[in-house]
Amino acid sequence: MAAGGNFFEDFRLGQVLEHGPPRTITTGDAALYTALYGSRFAPQCADTAAKALGLHRAPLDDLLVFHMVFGKSVPDISLNAVANLGYAQGRFLKPVYPGVTIAAASKVIGLKENANRQTGVVYVETTGRDDTGEAILTYVRWVMVRKRDPESVVSPATVPDLAANVAPADLKVPAPDIVRLPAALGGEGPAFADLKAGGRIDHGDGMTVEEAEHMLATRLYHNTARVHFNQHAEAKGRFGKRIVYGGHVISIARALSFNGLATAWFIAGINGGRHVNPCFAGDTVYAWTQVLETHTHPASPGTGLLRLRTIATKDHPCSEFPGPGASGTYPPYVILDLDYWAAMARH
Amino acid sequence: MAAGGNFFEDFRLGQVLEHGPPRTITTGDAALYTALYGSRFAPQCADTAAKALGLHRAPLDDLLVFHMVFGKSVPDISLNAVANLGYAQGRFLKPVYPGVTIAAASKVIGLKENANRQTGVVYVETTGRDDTGEAILTYVRWVMVRKRDPESVVSPATVPDLAANVAPADLKVPAPDIVRLPAALGGEGPAFADLKAGGRIDHGDGMTVEEAEHMLATRLYHNTARVHFNQHAEAKGRFGKRIVYGGHVISIARALSFNGLATAWFIAGINGGRHVNPCFAGDTVYAWTQVLETHTHPASPGTGLLRLRTIATKDHPCSEFPGPGASGTYPPYVILDLDYWAAMARH
Amino acid sequence: MAAGGNFFEDFRLGQVLEHGPPRTITTGDAALYTALYGSRFAPQCADTAAKALGLHRAPLDDLLVFHMVFGKSVPDISLNAVANLGYAQGRFLKPVYPGVTIAAASKVIGLKENANRQTGVVYVETTGRDDTGEAILTYVRWVMVRKRDPESVVSPATVPDLAANVAPADLKVPAPDIVRLPAALGGEGPAFADLKAGGRIDHGDGMTVEEAEHMLATRLYHNTARVHFNQHAEAKGRFGKRIVYGGHVISIARALSFNGLATAWFIAGINGGRHVNPCFAGDTVYAWTQVLETHTHPASPGTGLLRLRTIATKDHPCSEFPGPGASGTYPPYVILDLDYWAAMARH
Repeated sequence: MAAGGNFFEDFRLGQVLEHGPPRTITTGDAALYTALYGSRFAPQCADTAAKALGLHRAPLDDLLVFHMVFGKSVPDISLNAVANLGYAQGRFLKPVYPGVTIAAASKVIGLKENANRQTGVVYVETTGRDDTGEAILTYVRWVMVRKRDPESVVSPATVPDLAANVAPADLKVPAPDIVRLPAALGGEGPAFADLKAGGRIDHGDGMTVEEAEHMLATRLYHNTARVHFNQHAEAKGRFGKRIVYGGHVISIARALSFNGLATAWFIAGINGGRHVNPCFAGDTVYAWTQVLETHTHPASPGTGLLRLRTIATKDHPCSEFPGPGASGTYPPYVILDLDYWAAMARH
Repeated sequence: MAAGGNFFEDFRLGQVLEHGPPRTITTGDAALYTALYGSRFAPQCADTAAKALGLHRAPLDDLLVFHMVFGKSVPDISLNAVANLGYAQGRFLKPVYPGVTIAAASKVIGLKENANRQTGVVYVETTGRDDTGEAILTYVRWVMVRKRDPESVVSPATVPDLAANVAPADLKVPAPDIVRLPAALGGEGPAFADLKAGGRIDHGDGMTVEEAEHMLATRLYHNTARVHFNQHAEAKGRFGKRIVYGGHVISIARALSFNGLATAWFIAGINGGRHVNPCFAGDTVYAWTQVLETHTHPASPGTGLLRLRTIATKDHPCSEFPGPGASGTYPPYVILDLDYWAAMARH
Repeated sequence: MAAGGNFFEDFRLGQVLEHGPPRTITTGDAALYTALYGSRFAPQCADTAAKALGLHRAPLDDLLVFHMVFGKSVPDISLNAVANLGYAQGRFLKPVYPGVTIAAASKVIGLKENANRQTGVVYVETTGRDDTGEAILTYVRWVMVRKRDPESVVSPATVPDLAANVAPADLKVPAPDIVRLPAALGGEGPAFADLKAGGRIDHGDGMTVEEAEHMLATRLYHNTARVHFNQHAEAKGRFGKRIVYGGHVISIARALSFNGLATAWFIAGINGGRHVNPCFAGDTVYAWTQVLETHTHPASPGTGLLRLRTIATKDHPCSEFPGPGASGTYPPYVILDLDYWAAMARH
């Protein structure tokens, strides 16, 4: 880890960066996650529900694990980032339980200088591992990183070939047996058969973000990106204020999606995601979701897979399903466009 | 659980609503509770103090359990509530320890349409159970709920006959042996014999509420009532701002009551409670308590019972014991009038 | 514990005050500590790193333990304090793990009335113990406390003879074997040999403080000092607003010091500390550190000791190492001057 973080010219294709220190995730972290987002999906909230699915106990929320792994990578990858451009090929590989210590590492899989020579795009494949060394999560992200010196000469561009989405066969089954649970165990919500491709769900509620909340979250994740924490510096910056960590918006949108997707219990993969406009404290986040595809898991006939596109907005309710216009341009109130796989009971 | 919540005409007398998903409560939730209120009662703070009373370890704060059970009921009972009118017949039935998974259900015990036909009052008896199925808490609350359609015709009114207070013989003993502990274990505070009916205690301190705090609390409890979270919508609402969950005020008042009632360790019952004015972020909460009655527990001669009336105010210190005037009208700065039973050592 | 706290004339030389109730510290408290400060030192964050050093699991952050012990003492010692004047002779005596119940007691070791007779300085030696009764932390602090009655006559002044710093031989080794860990376990950071007396490190980042954050922290520590919580009263007070607990600033500065001191894993002692100006919500805290001395631990040749002086500022970056001027006067933006011992691997 370079003091002051890495600049574009510090990265080399194929380089592997170990993101120490590791982090033991506990029920304390899980409680904070609940307090920050109010997520209510049954297996992550209740040991009883988790055990009824064959899990040892309530696993950590998939996005808490994602943020922890992501946070570990920030000091090495994106401390000098101008923008977090996108995610792809995300796969959640096994349930993570309280008490597990995670470590993360990233491999540089692409580098492309921008025409202005001030910045370049760094593509990394980041992997989180538990304390047995097994991979728990892997994803690709790309970020625009400042050059230390615009004049420095860098290698020719290499851009990785990224899949438009994770193939169903490559998704892991998060629970041995995803069965429909009785209502008292949290089984209420839509049946898989009712969630058809093309269907759209307004998640209804809105959640206002406070400075204290997004900073508590982002520190919990060991994410050290400066734009989130330092009002004294940001007052003179691009927006005049702190920017909310994009992952905070993802977690709010996912928690809101309980309204309408209460049984879409697990996130199995992330196909793509873009933070299309910034979110600030004081903004109220709303969200809606479109079902893009539905599948039976190729290796697990009891598991239904939902490919979902969730759009989050700020200060703009989602009853009319706002999104990019015909031109592909996002209105300024759309802040997130996320494409992910959820796993749920097929029956 | 109906999408968008139940309206008045959706409830039927005798109906039982199971409030899934359940919720495993952990030491993480307990730590957040401490951070939110600063509660310092010995048995809930220290395993050593709890064990000296014959408990397995520090139990969860009684009000944390109450809020968790209450929160579970919100999506089914009060999502379309105009006002939370009152509580009665609350009984805390056994100590709840970290690791327990609670589930809640409510039975509709009364329904009464209002004269304007826009709303009606729903009376429910809510019970929280642990993962062995044993009841840990039961209470009645009544809420004013909007009708979906003012024109819909509903059944004749049924109003339950509610006790003015829980009888001492119906209160459970929270610890096998409530003994006075040495000072080093948290035993300092008033003796039972010093707390006489009619006595009044100003709890002295004031606590200012922040938006981030009441939202963290309310999400932690899985309480989804919209008025607490959505500034974008509430800006156009009744008060122009988010309303603090009434239970947040109860917990602040209870934590403040440590000043003067440090040995009133357990809440055994809730006789009644009303949120007589709203609380908003920025308000400073003060509280005072009057001892209404004292008893020896009929089945447990070592246990003293205190019937306490706690009044909480906003931006108004309690050195002059403010309350409703002779007319029964509350001044606008009184926000809570709570009547509860505490259990403590008699000797 | 006197209702309303002790005044200067309530203290007697040699008096021992037991600060009940005790407090069980859990992984929930540790998670909140991480969310509040973002501290990333490896042994406290990761069980794997801690075990590689011969510890049972990740111990609690040394400053979390300090704040918990300090908080316990507030109701007895400093509820009527005008100012917290300083710390000395602090020693962290053994690692504290989640699940331990701490209790604290203070001995009055000095008393000195001020010339104006309105206030006096109380010196106490505070000791925290775990549930086996073993001391985990001891330190001296002195506070200026109001007199109940300026006219009351008090004993002649006794001022304790305090060491300018804790001698290296009196510091405890926090881990059986402090070895350099591999990068994947959090071993990245400066080598002991690179940290030379006289060296100065700008910790770079700034952290803005919110009201909700410092109040969550201060309640978590059971610190009841009124100036931190009551905006209604403080609006008419000295500054017109709530004051941030000084220990909150120490923890921010320590967390920021990871930038440049990532391997200075343990706090072994506190030589002295002064909160030279107040910190308020909205302030952005920066910090820098000077290495004052380096030693090999006399009884543990593998352990390097760093005597560090950390200066924290508000709304003032530390790239030019601000501190007191030649006259010893602190500029108004300097808020903390702390002198402490850190322990790290020598090789």
